[in-house]
Amino acid sequence: MALIVHKYGGTSMGSPERIRNVAKRVAKWARAGHQMVVVPSAMSGETNRLLGLASELAPSQAKSSYYRELDMLASTGEQASSALLAIALQSEGMDAISYAGWQVPVRTDSSYTKARIESIDDVRVRGDLDAGRVVIITGFQGIDPQGNVTTLGRGGSDTSAVAIAAALKANECLIYTDVDGVYTTDPRVVPAAKRLGTVSFEEMLEMASLGSKVLQIRSVEFAGKYKVPMRVLSSFTPWDIDLDEEAKSGTLITFEEDEKMEKAVVSGIAFNRGEAKISVLGVPDTPGIAAGILGPVADANIEVDVIIQNISKDGKTDFSFTVNQGDYQRALELLRDKVAPALGASEVVGNQNIAKVSIVGIGMRSHVGVASTMFRTLSQEGVNIQMISTSEIKTSVVIDEKYLELAVRSLHTAFGLDKSE
Amino acid sequence: MALIVHKYGGTSMGSPERIRNVAKRVAKWARAGHQMVVVPSAMSGETNRLLGLASELAPSQAKSSYYRELDMLASTGEQASSALLAIALQSEGMDAISYAGWQVPVRTDSSYTKARIESIDDVRVRGDLDAGRVVIITGFQGIDPQGNVTTLGRGGSDTSAVAIAAALKANECLIYTDVDGVYTTDPRVVPAAKRLGTVSFEEMLEMASLGSKVLQIRSVEFAGKYKVPMRVLSSFTPWDIDLDEEAKSGTLITFEEDEKMEKAVVSGIAFNRGEAKISVLGVPDTPGIAAGILGPVADANIEVDVIIQNISKDGKTDFSFTVNQGDYQRALELLRDKVAPALGASEVVGNQNIAKVSIVGIGMRSHVGVASTMFRTLSQEGVNIQMISTSEIKTSVVIDEKYLELAVRSLHTAFGLDKSE
Repeated sequence: MALIVHKYGGTSMGSPERIRNVAKRVAKWARAGHQMVVVPSAMSGETNRLLGLASELAPSQAKSSYYRELDMLASTGEQASSALLAIALQSEGMDAISYAGWQVPVRTDSSYTKARIESIDDVRVRGDLDAGRVVIITGFQGIDPQGNVTTLGRGGSDTSAVAIAAALKANECLIYTDVDGVYTTDPRVVPAAKRLGTVSFEEMLEMASLGSKVLQIRSVEFAGKYKVPMRVLSSFTPWDIDLDEEAKSGTLITFEEDEKMEKAVVSGIAFNRGEAKISVLGVPDTPGIAAGILGPVADANIEVDVIIQNISKDGKTDFSFTVNQGDYQRALELLRDKVAPALGASEVVGNQNIAKVSIVGIGMRSHVGVASTMFRTLSQEGVNIQMISTSEIKTSVVIDEKYLELAVRSLHTAFGLDKSE
Repeated sequence: MALIVHKYGGTSMGSPERIRNVAKRVAKWARAGHQMVVVPSAMSGETNRLLGLASELAPSQAKSSYYRELDMLASTGEQASSALLAIALQSEGMDAISYAGWQVPVRTDSSYTKARIESIDDVRVRGDLDAGRVVIITGFQGIDPQGNVTTLGRGGSDTSAVAIAAALKANECLIYTDVDGVYTTDPRVVPAAKRLGTVSFEEMLEMASLGSKVLQIRSVEFAGKYKVPMRVLSSFTPWDIDLDEEAKSGTLITFEEDEKMEKAVVSGIAFNRGEAKISVLGVPDTPGIAAGILGPVADANIEVDVIIQNISKDGKTDFSFTVNQGDYQRALELLRDKVAPALGASEVVGNQNIAKVSIVGIGMRSHVGVASTMFRTLSQEGVNIQMISTSEIKTSVVIDEKYLELAVRSLHTAFGLDKSE
């Protein structure tokens, strides 16, 4: 008997029929003797519907009191789907109970719309589990020290599930989703992409941060911090497939590099179309120039990803970095209107037609020449590299967006990731 | 400056446009210097949508664990509309905050789907009011001693509003609804029906219990118990009408019979099509016969309204009572299969084509002959009376449903309630 946490996304909870299938699947696990905790997302479309009503009423306001109300509003979606799942489980003959975040409680800080979980009380849930109940806990939400409802931000249900699994010391946290696991790259771009049976936590973290949409990055961070074994698997398999088969399906995110792990140097190719590049040209190359440019950007709450500073020439240098597309205009204006004049830079230019491609693999730690294989492959395909960023287990390049598919496909082949026919 | 509670029904909250109008109206009151608490219902259709999802998943189960989940589900409707109203008020430049029932908290017992309010903590709300905030409190819901979400049942938002007004010792509780006040009878049946400027609490209580749909009966009970001045008025007047005019519109439910009150002996004619009659015929007339029949009915949780026992003849008697249409079949079967055989009754007959018509007025206390005027009027119209029930301030008769409109119209005229042209 194990304590298992299941997380179901909005698509899996998208209709009464699908909720019934989730209930049947959970009941199967419970009947096999497992203690079950389930974390459902809101029914697909529901969070957008609610936030759409809010935006019909008022333009977004950068005020805490406004974000507080958005959280009150958005949190109702998960509460409703949790209650519906409890009803479906009861109808399957299971004893089931649902809890909103504040009832557990899932304690968070007060950063409305993007709160961070601080602690989870396991007393109430454990009591129910010991009494033989299936416990459903709303994902995506919690309660702050003042008793206000908070949400974790989009995709936060993954994080809720992992945090709950950590608090309960669950044996495994299963993330049921609309893909059947983690792939070497996006199969829509490279049909030869393979599903990974296992992937290390560090690789998953890089992939999530580099643009793979399978898991929300904070959930992976949580899993790493608390060593929660986490599995990504499909919610579209029939609910009545053999439990042992289901329990081994998908991709397991592991914390130990054991013998069975796949030995590829590079485990996957991640990419991200969602960034834009900004360059500040002709900046006098004095100490503190990076802080002079990036300080105001950070103060404006704009996240910066890849950063490069060119070598100095005639006492001047160029400074480039990438930001999310959503922050691009704001960052550009800030730099043009305030930062560049203050620093005496000659020009600020931007480019939204870029893409970031990354190779990821813990094997890179012990293998030399991985990055150069990447650069050579891209060069052979005529793809110009605009920026490079490296870490211990990944190398990222920024390229012209039009070469994205070509780059990903050729790297996938070059690192031996293509499915063997 | 006064402390005012506004309550808005589902129709008034039915769309972003309508929510914006509610916000403008509330803002007008707040800007006039009043401390404002607002209790909104769920957007119209929302509670039905949610409960519809539940019934798609599972047939209704008479289990506390099931009702608990229904409350978790249904309570989300009011939470969402409260947050939306807060956002709309903020967009009008007001400082506004919404609270779910558990946040206030509004404490109830644990009777899921029909909980009763036990107490309301006013500390948090009063702090916000003193800080100049408009406070929005979800109607219809509360929290039980174990921290579970409860709902008060359909129409419970009226009760929430009055209970909150009582807890805060509000100067007045304004119930904004889709009618512009309490009428002498339903204007759809009697076009000559007049709006009452004031009505006594006791009359309102009788009217509500006799079928008038304007106010939920428990809200009137609450208003009576805590002496909360309560006003029913239209939410469809333009939001920017003069505040003094708005404050005097609708119908005020009063607790004092002051000089200004209308002096009619009968204040209104209430009616109810929602009951059915059951008669147990030829019961041996022994002591305890009423308990023998009504005991099992009460045990089956079926509410009984008008009851009459015929005079005994040859040691046998007939016993009749009315129940809600929804309980009719169940009551009939219970009596036929269990009760009648046990008591040796000869027959059980039922009739769904009945209606109850009542005259209500505190003037009846001090005027004789009111009931006989009623009976004479009906007799002149050829309406046969099947059952009679009286109290200090009302007389009800059960008649054939087909005479309902005729009876109501003729009584309305007979008691001088018609609008003077």
